[in-house]
Amino acid sequence: MLFKVEMKVNIPHDMPVDVAAGIKALEKAYAQELQRQGKWRHLWRVAGSYANVSIFDVADNAELQELISGLPLFPYMDISVAPLCRHPSSIHADDR
Amino acid sequence: MLFKVEMKVNIPHDMPVDVAAGIKALEKAYAQELQRQGKWRHLWRVAGSYANVSIFDVADNAELQELISGLPLFPYMDISVAPLCRHPSSIHADDR
Amino acid sequence: MLFKVEMKVNIPHDMPVDVAAGIKALEKAYAQELQRQGKWRHLWRVAGSYANVSIFDVADNAELQELISGLPLFPYMDISVAPLCRHPSSIHADDR
Amino acid sequence: MLFKVEMKVNIPHDMPVDVAAGIKALEKAYAQELQRQGKWRHLWRVAGSYANVSIFDVADNAELQELISGLPLFPYMDISVAPLCRHPSSIHADDR
Amino acid sequence: MLFKVEMKVNIPHDMPVDVAAGIKALEKAYAQELQRQGKWRHLWRVAGSYANVSIFDVADNAELQELISGLPLFPYMDISVAPLCRHPSSIHADDR
Amino acid sequence: MLFKVEMKVNIPHDMPVDVAAGIKALEKAYAQELQRQGKWRHLWRVAGSYANVSIFDVADNAELQELISGLPLFPYMDISVAPLCRHPSSIHADDR
Amino acid sequence: MLFKVEMKVNIPHDMPVDVAAGIKALEKAYAQELQRQGKWRHLWRVAGSYANVSIFDVADNAELQELISGLPLFPYMDISVAPLCRHPSSIHADDR
Amino acid sequence: MLFKVEMKVNIPHDMPVDVAAGIKALEKAYAQELQRQGKWRHLWRVAGSYANVSIFDVADNAELQELISGLPLFPYMDISVAPLCRHPSSIHADDR
Amino acid sequence: MLFKVEMKVNIPHDMPVDVAAGIKALEKAYAQELQRQGKWRHLWRVAGSYANVSIFDVADNAELQELISGLPLFPYMDISVAPLCRHPSSIHADDR
Amino acid sequence: MLFKVEMKVNIPHDMPVDVAAGIKALEKAYAQELQRQGKWRHLWRVAGSYANVSIFDVADNAELQELISGLPLFPYMDISVAPLCRHPSSIHADDR
Repeated sequence: MLFKVEMKVNIPHDMPVDVAAGIKALEKAYAQELQRQGKWRHLWRVAGSYANVSIFDVADNAELQELISGLPLFPYMDISVAPLCRHPSSIHADDR
Repeated sequence: MLFKVEMKVNIPHDMPVDVAAGIKALEKAYAQELQRQGKWRHLWRVAGSYANVSIFDVADNAELQELISGLPLFPYMDISVAPLCRHPSSIHADDR
Repeated sequence: MLFKVEMKVNIPHDMPVDVAAGIKALEKAYAQELQRQGKWRHLWRVAGSYANVSIFDVADNAELQELISGLPLFPYMDISVAPLCRHPSSIHADDR
Repeated sequence: MLFKVEMKVNIPHDMPVDVAAGIKALEKAYAQELQRQGKWRHLWRVAGSYANVSIFDVADNAELQELISGLPLFPYMDISVAPLCRHPSSIHADDR
Repeated sequence: MLFKVEMKVNIPHDMPVDVAAGIKALEKAYAQELQRQGKWRHLWRVAGSYANVSIFDVADNAELQELISGLPLFPYMDISVAPLCRHPSSIHADDR
Repeated sequence: MLFKVEMKVNIPHDMPVDVAAGIKALEKAYAQELQRQGKWRHLWRVAGSYANVSIFDVADNAELQELISGLPLFPYMDISVAPLCRHPSSIHADDR
Repeated sequence: MLFKVEMKVNIPHDMPVDVAAGIKALEKAYAQELQRQGKWRHLWRVAGSYANVSIFDVADNAELQELISGLPLFPYMDISVAPLCRHPSSIHADDR
Repeated sequence: MLFKVEMKVNIPHDMPVDVAAGIKALEKAYAQELQRQGKWRHLWRVAGSYANVSIFDVADNAELQELISGLPLFPYMDISVAPLCRHPSSIHADDR
Repeated sequence: MLFKVEMKVNIPHDMPVDVAAGIKALEKAYAQELQRQGKWRHLWRVAGSYANVSIFDVADNAELQELISGLPLFPYMDISVAPLCRHPSSIHADDR
Repeated sequence: MLFKVEMKVNIPHDMPVDVAAGIKALEKAYAQELQRQGKWRHLWRVAGSYANVSIFDVADNAELQELISGLPLFPYMDISVAPLCRHPSSIHADDR
């Protein structure tokens, strides 16, 4: 089941640089692990911003919550979610 | 080059049903042709709405404008566009 | 799987009264049938408005889209959707 | 008398972790006590967020204010309230 | 139990003048009857607008809905509602 | 001359508790003195919030500014003002 | 007593040209009469729009309502009002 | 050439009182000097706020930028600007 | 003197196609004449929309109003204006 | 390929003056280097603000992201981006 997830990162200005670097490294590892598991199907940077557009593929709403709330950057992001489903005009097999 | 495009359809209430049906049929054919050409890479319905989230793959901004303004439903949609690019944490080869 | 759905009804001012009454009667029958099936778990009026707050219980996003887009009043409503899941502090067994 | 209450938690980034943990523990105990009393009828997490959708069942507006302003996280939340009442199409006995 | 109700009137431009006049006369009679019953405690015009600020005094949310949805101008107004209760600093006996 | 004034209190999270308590005590005394003078005619809590709806009765705009800017909590509130006047449908003598 | 009033004109697209011209002529006469009476102290066009910024000088809120609701274009404008008073840094005698 | 300028002051809560007082004194002197030069033609307080509505009279956009960015409170204000010009219905010679 | 002007075209759905075509042809001629005069310095389409971003070069606010209000599509556009001036970091001679 | 980029600078109030001055100097050098390379085609100050309107000329979305995220002031700016393309009514050869 697919969800569009948009994330905008807002690192507090007074966070020490090394602390921020540590969180970002954890975030990258976490994101790549979820991609390897097939749960984070797409991940794009929005050009000109510190933000991304993502497509998650999860079993249900509960798994979406578990994955997103586990993001190391979760406390520092504005996040919006939209549930997706197959569009009747889609011809792509994996646009479920 | 990728763009996220979100489209919300607002058919005027006083449009005759058969006129609307005709435009929707043209829209479907147009959308499927662009998908076959590889220019409309993803097309999802937003659950609970008459709206979609799409990923376009075009040569440049001019082609994006040409494709979107050519949509049969173009005069009846609210459309928003965001330029995308590769995210440094993506592991998917085609998340360009 | 639960979703909060909020619906605000905007009947066009120039719709004939009997047409509107017919659509509303269909809407009521449809809503009650979905409630009997257990898919529309809660339905409340927002006091002071022509709007409701609802809780849907569906198999997945696709079913949510099917049920909502089938509403007789669908073309005349502003609808917003939020995916819900169990809250760690809930003690109610059915607040899944 | 029912109210929909939506709460979005915004813990200040500079609050010490143990202070935050203490407030969250108090919040959980408080929320569960109100649920046991039947005043907090539903409590759902909004998937992908640090937010909830709740249904309160109170005697009147004054009790709503007393319960919400007593939340240990009250100073750290954006809260919106909507008064609910029975919907003429509801068939559920407890959707008062 | 008190509610602040704000109403903004939007008469459709193509409503015949005599039809509009008829609805407004019904609205005035309805508003004055509710004031006589003590249910519409205050009614002020917002200066520079076709809008009002009102204080309703009702038994519960259901009565609020009944009174507001019965307004002859109800289909032509944007309405917002806020539940009120006694303020701890108020010294006025009737600011319940 | 009447004005509706809405105030939302936002105490900074890092203000010491006793400083906040001192300002709130001054605010209460100030509010009650203005009520006794007849200049703050109504004061209601908005249920579920740290906010109020008030009706001020002042000689002119300058007095409104003097009274509001003198509020001890003035630097910590979002305040909105709407000028009111008699509504042609009001039957209450003091809804000037 | 001064008020800033901003007006944005929205003539319905289907209003016959001569009807619109008639209303605009009445509006101009009305605006000039109020200027001659000293009640409409300033009237500026906002460059690049069909809108104006005005300063009204009235006895009280009731007169403001009387003057604005009497505008021939009143049903076709979005209007916002802000009460003004003397600024402590002003050196202009008539910036009351 | 005239511009409407609206300024809303947001002094940071942690600015020492004497620092704030110093900046405000500079602001007042600066504002009065520009008024004496005829460049700041009107300055009104918005009643019930720490905000003003102003009319600037400048040679061009560059001078507007020079004057506004030189305000001692400039870093602490939300500022909005609207270009003005003569309204065809104005009868005031100096409403250029 | 430069202004950024953004225009979004909203042709009413019930305007006859030939009437719309006529207005658009007039608009094109008008836009090209102003470009030849050097007053409309830049004109870009916003990709994916029926909107443009423009840079106008005018003598003053009054000329801006004259040029924009003379656009054949003026009654059918949402238009926003921002005054521009030279940026201290610009190295382009004509970014006045 | 052109993009309109709008940047609003928000330097944190507690950043030391010399740190801010250092970042601004880097920003100026960076902006001028990109202008010399032809990638930052236009740069204007929005009059009355600490903001700019810019036109970037880049190979693709990825280069736009690279250039903007490399701005020394990037962490302290609100940035919005709109893809541009040639307008059919433009007569300027370089309004690509």
